[in-house]
Amino acid sequence: MTIQGSESDKGGTPRRRVRREAGRVPLLPWRQVVNAYAPIEALDEERLERLHDASMRILEEQGIEVLNDEALDILARHGATVDRANGRVRLDRALVLAFVAKAPESFTLHAPNPQRDLVIGARHVVFNAVSSAPNCSDLDAGRRPGTQVDFRNLLKLAHSLPILHLPAGYAVEPADLPPATRHLDCLHDYARFTDRAWRCSALGGARVEDAVAMNAILRGLGGEELAEKPGVMTVINTNSPLRADGAMVDGLMAMARARQPVIVTPFTLAGAMAPVTLAGALALQNAEALALIAFLQMVAPGAPVVYGGYTSNVDMKTGAPAFGTPEYTRAAFIGGQLARRYRLPYRSSNACAANEVDAQAAYESEMSLWGAVMGGANVVAHGAGWMEGGLVASYEKMVVDAEMLQMLAEFLKPLVVDEESLALDAIAEVGPGGHFFGAAHTLARFEAAFYAPLVSDWRNFESWRLAGAEDAAQRANKIWKQLLREYEAPPLDPAVDEALADYVARRKAEGGVAV
Amino acid sequence: MTIQGSESDKGGTPRRRVRREAGRVPLLPWRQVVNAYAPIEALDEERLERLHDASMRILEEQGIEVLNDEALDILARHGATVDRANGRVRLDRALVLAFVAKAPESFTLHAPNPQRDLVIGARHVVFNAVSSAPNCSDLDAGRRPGTQVDFRNLLKLAHSLPILHLPAGYAVEPADLPPATRHLDCLHDYARFTDRAWRCSALGGARVEDAVAMNAILRGLGGEELAEKPGVMTVINTNSPLRADGAMVDGLMAMARARQPVIVTPFTLAGAMAPVTLAGALALQNAEALALIAFLQMVAPGAPVVYGGYTSNVDMKTGAPAFGTPEYTRAAFIGGQLARRYRLPYRSSNACAANEVDAQAAYESEMSLWGAVMGGANVVAHGAGWMEGGLVASYEKMVVDAEMLQMLAEFLKPLVVDEESLALDAIAEVGPGGHFFGAAHTLARFEAAFYAPLVSDWRNFESWRLAGAEDAAQRANKIWKQLLREYEAPPLDPAVDEALADYVARRKAEGGVAV
Repeated sequence: MTIQGSESDKGGTPRRRVRREAGRVPLLPWRQVVNAYAPIEALDEERLERLHDASMRILEEQGIEVLNDEALDILARHGATVDRANGRVRLDRALVLAFVAKAPESFTLHAPNPQRDLVIGARHVVFNAVSSAPNCSDLDAGRRPGTQVDFRNLLKLAHSLPILHLPAGYAVEPADLPPATRHLDCLHDYARFTDRAWRCSALGGARVEDAVAMNAILRGLGGEELAEKPGVMTVINTNSPLRADGAMVDGLMAMARARQPVIVTPFTLAGAMAPVTLAGALALQNAEALALIAFLQMVAPGAPVVYGGYTSNVDMKTGAPAFGTPEYTRAAFIGGQLARRYRLPYRSSNACAANEVDAQAAYESEMSLWGAVMGGANVVAHGAGWMEGGLVASYEKMVVDAEMLQMLAEFLKPLVVDEESLALDAIAEVGPGGHFFGAAHTLARFEAAFYAPLVSDWRNFESWRLAGAEDAAQRANKIWKQLLREYEAPPLDPAVDEALADYVARRKAEGGVAV
Repeated sequence: MTIQGSESDKGGTPRRRVRREAGRVPLLPWRQVVNAYAPIEALDEERLERLHDASMRILEEQGIEVLNDEALDILARHGATVDRANGRVRLDRALVLAFVAKAPESFTLHAPNPQRDLVIGARHVVFNAVSSAPNCSDLDAGRRPGTQVDFRNLLKLAHSLPILHLPAGYAVEPADLPPATRHLDCLHDYARFTDRAWRCSALGGARVEDAVAMNAILRGLGGEELAEKPGVMTVINTNSPLRADGAMVDGLMAMARARQPVIVTPFTLAGAMAPVTLAGALALQNAEALALIAFLQMVAPGAPVVYGGYTSNVDMKTGAPAFGTPEYTRAAFIGGQLARRYRLPYRSSNACAANEVDAQAAYESEMSLWGAVMGGANVVAHGAGWMEGGLVASYEKMVVDAEMLQMLAEFLKPLVVDEESLALDAIAEVGPGGHFFGAAHTLARFEAAFYAPLVSDWRNFESWRLAGAEDAAQRANKIWKQLLREYEAPPLDPAVDEALADYVARRKAEGGVAV
């Protein structure tokens, strides 16, 4: 397995670190990450095909329940066997594979700022911020339900961290906003607080239509142009086992028709919503993902779609979901292998079950992240801030995760090995027992030679102790506050802002969406 | 890249977890870990050869300083160009490669209990406990210089954790024991407190001779039998750049003559003892490692030896060593690739620079560990307990690291994909929207289905909070205390113990070793 690819510095500045000056938080500059390592093939061909075959048998013999009449019509029209009495849809493997094959191997997700466009697929890796947590938490105010203030803070924080290529989704649900119109306020906030691409809620077609309309207003595009240059991505979960609920399918169809990318992610927790064996859980994940991806391609052939893997396991003593476990990491590797088998981009996650930003939070997240990057993930959802199995978006965890993501991004670069970097002259100059600190070769390179950490404290024990003996979470607390203080909104044309405000006002007057 | 190999359960019990009963700490049973994943080749052939060529040029043009007259004689006799005036030894690449090629690709390190024998090489992974820290630390007593009490506690703790295949080395230096005879007490403690294989200090030949003699007494072997079934391993560091000190070379020769395995590990900190560029630091690492390995094979052709990689970088602002950095992880991958190029077993480490058992300690250790296991390491030194760049052996970190190692060991197993694990009958039985908790397939497997954590707390936030809201370090504190309470010494024949005591008494009477 060999390093390939090269670094993409699209939109980056020539300086290695953009924020070093004047005591600002040191951050890696914007850069789309390209994985220099070939993904690991965890299964040999035989076991991979056995897994594939099992998924196909599930769809042929059991089928999947689709709780949406329009979808059942479409599926029947395209050759699926539909039982109207119970919504059960059986799909022949030839049918599934023929439609899955229509999906593109990669695509571009466009941002309001074209320098923040993202390639989804190939060796590219896109890190998302946490999304959809009902609660948030920080060391000062503790754990509480999310509000608009928190939604905005976490959005600004994500925007401030260039390693988070996709800040949105709702980092936390702003529970103080009315559910029928909440999405409108959030979408308007995306436009105002970040210039990166969008993630929207797809719970029902109406929310999707609002997101698409507002993204078109923001980017000054007509509907057809937006379809050609998609700017809004979403996640559609199945209700495992083998059920697709009505609103989700409705949202999926609206996304597909607008040709905006959909990540299809079955929620196959082994031992609960999926078999207790990892092979069985993965067979179920694969069956559900491929069924919805094939359906999406029936609705809109060639529309962008991502294969999502999220298989983990529960604690069999309590039924509590666990993440970042050995089982989770293996599933992340194999999920990637399955996605590549069907030539689809792959989504994995940075998940953990910890209640606090402690060693457990870090090692579970690292297990998840290594599963994602070495598994060949193109989208890493919940990349920063996710705690408690998704129940909490943590301000401090967002910063600690950003450090972990930055470290991985640096690690994923290919190593230069040439005359200059091999440094034989410096080795000759320094000689046995000498020191490289003062060597000309060192002096010319030392400032940008190594990754400069965000959270890590490398001082010796005594200095660290005298400076207050803060742990990583306490240091992260100071960093997010500084980032919020230093936050600057990207430019937004006031006329566009007003047009968005008008749209939001009109839709609010109409009552928003049905809830 | 494909999963190969199979699990080795040598010496394990048929039960999956040995200590579940009666409220004991849940631990994975003894098992030598086999890595199911092929190691990652981080460099393409061209860059790898460029790195190799640079190392050869260093040895041909600069040479290495060897501060030991006997070694210089041996080197000269075997064809090296030796400058007696300054101890500089230049080695032709043909000479280096011819002698390196005499080293075995893998070997067995024998334990006093033959069920704890370890294969070093191929796809086997051996986890060591921390070694050589001057200080120790725990949450109750804080950070302090090590004593014999701590040395023994950490040895017992390592023995209690079956994931630590090699508990020894001095987890912490027992600074309250006289330096001239300290090693004798420590070796006697190995015999009494663990039945696993030994690591010894090789600072000078006399210490090695004591270790070899005492290991032979313990195992009831003559010198020749011990040479055939080596039982004591050591680490020899170079004084980078390009210097091998006298006592270390003396120890290396004594080990080689006794045919006990040596891990040769250059300490190439980029920016300090090695070039600031990673390629340069790795070229230097490779030159130093191969020079000493070739020398060892001149002393004792075919004697067991391990290629050690330890390249990291310093913080260029302060000069402080950093570990678990992106640079460290890349170096760990490439070190493995180099070792495989020369068909040598490979050693890497679990290193971190954190001052506390917090998120930083965990994510730096995970970066190191993933570098080790995906880099194809056969020996993971400092696998548990290492803090502050090696200045501290932490009781709590040893437990948290053991959790990380257990998780990796489970992850490294190949996945079974067969009719039974694919669970199609269970999926049919449960049907759309159902639940697998009660399925027969689940009930038959749930107890041993998933990894059971040691430190991780998966309770929901409220339960965790009501139970005292302990973080991972606090939980680890309780676990090491319980492990020490439950510790049981392995059986030791009283006659052997007495023979060892006699040996120690005699050598103490002689004054021990020169210090």
